Amino acid sequence: ERSYKVTLLPGDGIGPEILSVAVDVMRAVAEREGIKFEFTEKLVGGAAVDGAGVPLPDDTLATCRASDAVLLASIGGYKWDSNPPHLKPETGLLGLRAGLGVFANLRPVTVLPQLADASPLKREVAEGVDIMVVRELIGGIYFGEPRGFGVNESGHRYAYNNMVYSTPEIDRIARVAFETARKRQGRLCSVDKANVLQVSQLWRERVTAIGKEEYPDVELSHMYVDNAAMQLVRNPKQFDTIVTGNLFGDILSDISAQLSGSIGMLPSSSMSESGPGLFEPIHGSAPDIAGQDKANPLAQVLSAAMLLKYGLGETKAAELIEAAVSAALDKGYRTGDLMSSGKTLVGCKKMGEILLETL
Amino acid sequence: ERSYKVTLLPGDGIGPEILSVAVDVMRAVAEREGIKFEFTEKLVGGAAVDGAGVPLPDDTLATCRASDAVLLASIGGYKWDSNPPHLKPETGLLGLRAGLGVFANLRPVTVLPQLADASPLKREVAEGVDIMVVRELIGGIYFGEPRGFGVNESGHRYAYNNMVYSTPEIDRIARVAFETARKRQGRLCSVDKANVLQVSQLWRERVTAIGKEEYPDVELSHMYVDNAAMQLVRNPKQFDTIVTGNLFGDILSDISAQLSGSIGMLPSSSMSESGPGLFEPIHGSAPDIAGQDKANPLAQVLSAAMLLKYGLGETKAAELIEAAVSAALDKGYRTGDLMSSGKTLVGCKKMGEILLETL
Ligand SMILES: CC(C)[C@H](C(=O)O)[C@@H](O)C(=O)O
Ligand SMILES: CC(C)[C@H](C(=O)O)[C@@H](O)C(=O)O
Repeated sequence: ERSYKVTLLPGDGIGPEILSVAVDVMRAVAEREGIKFEFTEKLVGGAAVDGAGVPLPDDTLATCRASDAVLLASIGGYKWDSNPPHLKPETGLLGLRAGLGVFANLRPVTVLPQLADASPLKREVAEGVDIMVVRELIGGIYFGEPRGFGVNESGHRYAYNNMVYSTPEIDRIARVAFETARKRQGRLCSVDKANVLQVSQLWRERVTAIGKEEYPDVELSHMYVDNAAMQLVRNPKQFDTIVTGNLFGDILSDISAQLSGSIGMLPSSSMSESGPGLFEPIHGSAPDIAGQDKANPLAQVLSAAMLLKYGLGETKAAELIEAAVSAALDKGYRTGDLMSSGKTLVGCKKMGEILLETL
Repeated sequence: ERSYKVTLLPGDGIGPEILSVAVDVMRAVAEREGIKFEFTEKLVGGAAVDGAGVPLPDDTLATCRASDAVLLASIGGYKWDSNPPHLKPETGLLGLRAGLGVFANLRPVTVLPQLADASPLKREVAEGVDIMVVRELIGGIYFGEPRGFGVNESGHRYAYNNMVYSTPEIDRIARVAFETARKRQGRLCSVDKANVLQVSQLWRERVTAIGKEEYPDVELSHMYVDNAAMQLVRNPKQFDTIVTGNLFGDILSDISAQLSGSIGMLPSSSMSESGPGLFEPIHGSAPDIAGQDKANPLAQVLSAAMLLKYGLGETKAAELIEAAVSAALDKGYRTGDLMSSGKTLVGCKKMGEILLETL
């Protein structure tokens, strides 16, 4: 019997509800596949600020590090919005990513035929979209030093952040992206702002070199970030795999997600050089609907599938989960975010029950 | 007779073709309105690299500074793409903006009913969109120091750019944005990444303070840049006026522009504290169709209208131009970028002639 330690981080808002569905689903496939999970639940985000005085308790990070994979739900909420930076939920999330060294964030976006109508894009623009955004997650302006506040010669306050990348940081994310593109359609688009930023010039130089030396079979192109944002809306089907830095990846992956019209459906995985991976939905903690059994648990469930596939190598179990999600949609079940006429509206728990029946 | 000095900067690619149409249109309204224009044409961008050895000759900047308004077409092209930074067309554009001190870039995006079908968005999402993006144009990471390349303790190369804003820089763009919102629907959304960046925290603090103290009548909201990018695609009609920094404004204004499906239609104005304004289309130099009489001159023509209205206070003349553009579209004339069935395809020159007839 294969046995895995999985740390569960419910976080804030709708986090606990959706994570509970995902855990039930994992337990069900575990039974079918002869897998054993040892789940440990820990605090992070606003819940950790309230419960332990900091958004990322040492104990949480240590437990995550000692596990085989980490399943995170979502963090943040109005309640902590005016906290000082070191007591913000987001600070816990960034600390978790950095603490686990998960530099490679993979965000797959597909527009399922069942859901193409949910997209704000015209059907012919949206249908068939299948993009993988590979985002560098623990470098760039999110973590760059120096950063902070100052007073200039004229006595005026100013604030600054440093967008910085070194060659090893660029090289390792480029390799992940090329490997990813190779397993897909073999096309990689690297996004930067090399017409203005030095950091983008080094980025472009290194990605180009790695492509030439190590991945001549992958078709590499480059695009400026403003144009990429525009092209994602104009004709998203032109993209296969996209690789970019932390800030641009934050923006572009959210645009990509929105193309599907159903960000409640989209999972992500974040991998390090060797330690456990971190798996989380792309969406936030949706404090406005928290605790009302209205949330869509599918992004969380699909994040659990990514955990099984990429984090533990349990491909069979992952595919069972993906098939159950597809079947539930085929049968017409929808949470409120995806509801359209002729479909059956269900809550978060009920969606979980439907998945369990299918399994 | 009112007399104005206008510097013309045709730049690269389709620039000369579209500018020539705009100048003809300006001459026509000038005659009708008893205005006199003294046009001086100067080099900028790739054309200036080729013709004068630098992308922004001193003489160009001096002439622009001494004029009442500057009408720029577009810069850039494959030919100069691998030039060193100081010989890139973009460096000329950034130098021009900084040299003129045009800190406030206004990019209006409306989806004209005649063109709603050109949008990649569903008609019900796109129709009626009317957004003004106010972008800070001469600060932030585009110009922040220090910037450059280095070698770290481990002997690895790195590159970095500094995103920095001071309170006077934030305050003045915030005031322009609040004034703009006041003349529109009275709603301003400030976009930042204050959950991660200190520079955004100062931005949010100052915009909030100025709103409270000087513009209590304007409804102010804040949004993170990733969410704003997503919301622009999901439901663009929720926005009235958006204010943001240089880099985020670059990205968000391109998304907004794409919503209309017709970036060949969109003008922009850039204003300084006191000197001449800079007026240019949002689109680029489209080197692939340059010199083929295929370009859409309407963004350039509408930029000339913005020049008249905001740069010279010639509102009547501006409105004549806007009406001529609307009439040409109503009559069914379209350049290739906007062509759809049942419409009449025309080239750049022909579109110019149609505008002149209408005037
Ligand atoms: C919450 C926030 C810090 C985070 C980010 O910017 O990385 C989020 O937007 C995301 O994309 O996971
Ligand atoms: C050409 C480039 C430097 C420029 C910018 O990034 O400002 C362009 O994208 C724009 O938006 O005007």
